[in-house]
Amino acid sequence: MYSSSFPYIKIGVLGGGQLGKMLCQAASPWNLQIHILDPDENCSSKFICSSFTKGHFNDYNAVYNFGKDKDIITVEIEHVNTEALLQLEKDGKKIHPSPSALNVIKDKGLQKLHYQKHNIPTSAFRLYENKKEVLAAINKQEISIPFVLKTRTAGYDGKGVVVVKNINTLDNIPDAACVIEELVEIEKEISVIAAANENGEIKCFPAVEMKFNPVANLVEYLFCPAQISESVSKQAEGLAVSVIKSYNLCGLLAVEMFLDKSGNILVNEVAPRPHNSGHHTIESCYTPLGSTKMKSASAMVNLLGEPGYEGKAKYIGIEKCLSLEGVKIHVYGKEQTKPYRKMGHVTVLADTLSEAEEKAKFVKETLKVTA
Amino acid sequence: MYSSSFPYIKIGVLGGGQLGKMLCQAASPWNLQIHILDPDENCSSKFICSSFTKGHFNDYNAVYNFGKDKDIITVEIEHVNTEALLQLEKDGKKIHPSPSALNVIKDKGLQKLHYQKHNIPTSAFRLYENKKEVLAAINKQEISIPFVLKTRTAGYDGKGVVVVKNINTLDNIPDAACVIEELVEIEKEISVIAAANENGEIKCFPAVEMKFNPVANLVEYLFCPAQISESVSKQAEGLAVSVIKSYNLCGLLAVEMFLDKSGNILVNEVAPRPHNSGHHTIESCYTPLGSTKMKSASAMVNLLGEPGYEGKAKYIGIEKCLSLEGVKIHVYGKEQTKPYRKMGHVTVLADTLSEAEEKAKFVKETLKVTA
Repeated sequence: MYSSSFPYIKIGVLGGGQLGKMLCQAASPWNLQIHILDPDENCSSKFICSSFTKGHFNDYNAVYNFGKDKDIITVEIEHVNTEALLQLEKDGKKIHPSPSALNVIKDKGLQKLHYQKHNIPTSAFRLYENKKEVLAAINKQEISIPFVLKTRTAGYDGKGVVVVKNINTLDNIPDAACVIEELVEIEKEISVIAAANENGEIKCFPAVEMKFNPVANLVEYLFCPAQISESVSKQAEGLAVSVIKSYNLCGLLAVEMFLDKSGNILVNEVAPRPHNSGHHTIESCYTPLGSTKMKSASAMVNLLGEPGYEGKAKYIGIEKCLSLEGVKIHVYGKEQTKPYRKMGHVTVLADTLSEAEEKAKFVKETLKVTA
Repeated sequence: MYSSSFPYIKIGVLGGGQLGKMLCQAASPWNLQIHILDPDENCSSKFICSSFTKGHFNDYNAVYNFGKDKDIITVEIEHVNTEALLQLEKDGKKIHPSPSALNVIKDKGLQKLHYQKHNIPTSAFRLYENKKEVLAAINKQEISIPFVLKTRTAGYDGKGVVVVKNINTLDNIPDAACVIEELVEIEKEISVIAAANENGEIKCFPAVEMKFNPVANLVEYLFCPAQISESVSKQAEGLAVSVIKSYNLCGLLAVEMFLDKSGNILVNEVAPRPHNSGHHTIESCYTPLGSTKMKSASAMVNLLGEPGYEGKAKYIGIEKCLSLEGVKIHVYGKEQTKPYRKMGHVTVLADTLSEAEEKAKFVKETLKVTA
């Protein structure tokens, strides 16, 4: 529907991290112009965006002024000023994902209530306003240990999430509005990325399996296709379609799910934007709306800043990895490394998943980001 | 060998057209910084390069000053000021391809002499200084009609090439130093892209078959793999390896060849840079040094400016093409279209070559660049 103005549409993106960078990379062959708003003028997108505006995506004026001369506005992070987006929507701009969906998604409490309302399976939960309320609820045996605490807002990449396994961990919990969730007996963590266009057509990428780093609580490895049965895979895709429909979204939605030990699938949380669990699709899949067909089995390794190093990033062992067939390295161009900071990722394509896994493990052991 | 400074190496590219743009796209995942020198500040690379310097790649001072603060200098066009590159090489810069090879390649007369000297099969030829000499040679029956005339310098994309089929065509020949070549009875035109690294390791992409637009004398369709026998394919790859070795090159070399009606392979000409006959590899192949393995059969269609239109480019029929599986559209972002100007290309991936060909033909008929 943009045919007449293609490729002269002005697209604004709130946020210019690695996800914004990958969005710019995807847009470049079509010569679409991507304009970035980010508080950090050294953000990952700086060299590849069509124009850069310095400003915080959480600030009303910054977002509103940035959006005024754009045709479409989208996000690479959900923690943005939705008031400004609502005003821009009233002004006639296209906003994808919709500000109202963003308002729900960026508050993990509202997100859980949304799943409850739409009969989407999710783990049992309760909402509390602060630490005092949580402690009181434990005393009343309204909550029982173990449980998972997630702050309702501003958490990402494992930040704002505490697994309370025993009474001693209680000291560490933050004093903030939070969701308390039952600890699920997890068999596997999987993710399905659904994509919808403005006509409501929906396609899903094949389910992937995520392996988390136990210290940093963020994705270390990803494998595609997930090693799950055909029926679980179909069920997960069906669930992802229900979720994207429930939000009435246009664009990408990463739906993270737990497969529990009893074989149930529960929606954990979603991200309405490019997502870590879809990085491998850059090389391994055709493109949605179009096609999400897989070209190859793949594994993805996040390049996390090596613990013990902080400062200007160095990339050790990169040549050994480059010489491997099917190894695709993505460096995000963040100047400073920190322990467990996402500094890049590597996608491995191979004829079989086990071959991909083996190479991914070699990459993990070989390629280090130090200072 | 750049490990220690990766990804902080400063790479300068002479020329910022679509080939420079594709080079920047390839470098972006590694966060390598590509700096562009081009006379046109609206060139295709403008939004994706790390920095843009306005200046002509054929001007000594422009090239020398541009190169002074770079670590590596390369080209996306061969018609550059090699004197400045030779000085930069003396100053200790890495120049790929080497200026001495560029000096040979950018003069089609020297190129033919080079093949003769290195026993590389090529069509019979003679060199002349101007039109008067050519006409005299015809009178002396030193040359017989039909023949092909190519100006020695500054020709590209069919410009500077005249096929003289009869005496009337003689009026059209340019008054310039030229190569006169015997007209080859062509069965197929094929191309093999060879890639060499600094250690002299060489790999070849699978041979492709090119179909030319008879009016514009430039590539309209490309098919990969070429529909040639295994033995011809091996022979063509062997020849490409000999040619890249003969130039002692590091980087890419596209070797265009004729397969004649008697089954002989003759080298036509080469390009020491990203090349139209390798566009499909962006989506369809693994990467050389690394791997040139094919992931999929593919076809490539050049999007040429529709005859009869000149002005600000419009892209008609693009949505119909986007909805086809495996269709990858590249728009170069040139503001102005002209008849037969290369405005973009489309790569089609498919399970079989005939399926790719069918879709490529649909794209050709559907997607038009008008004004």
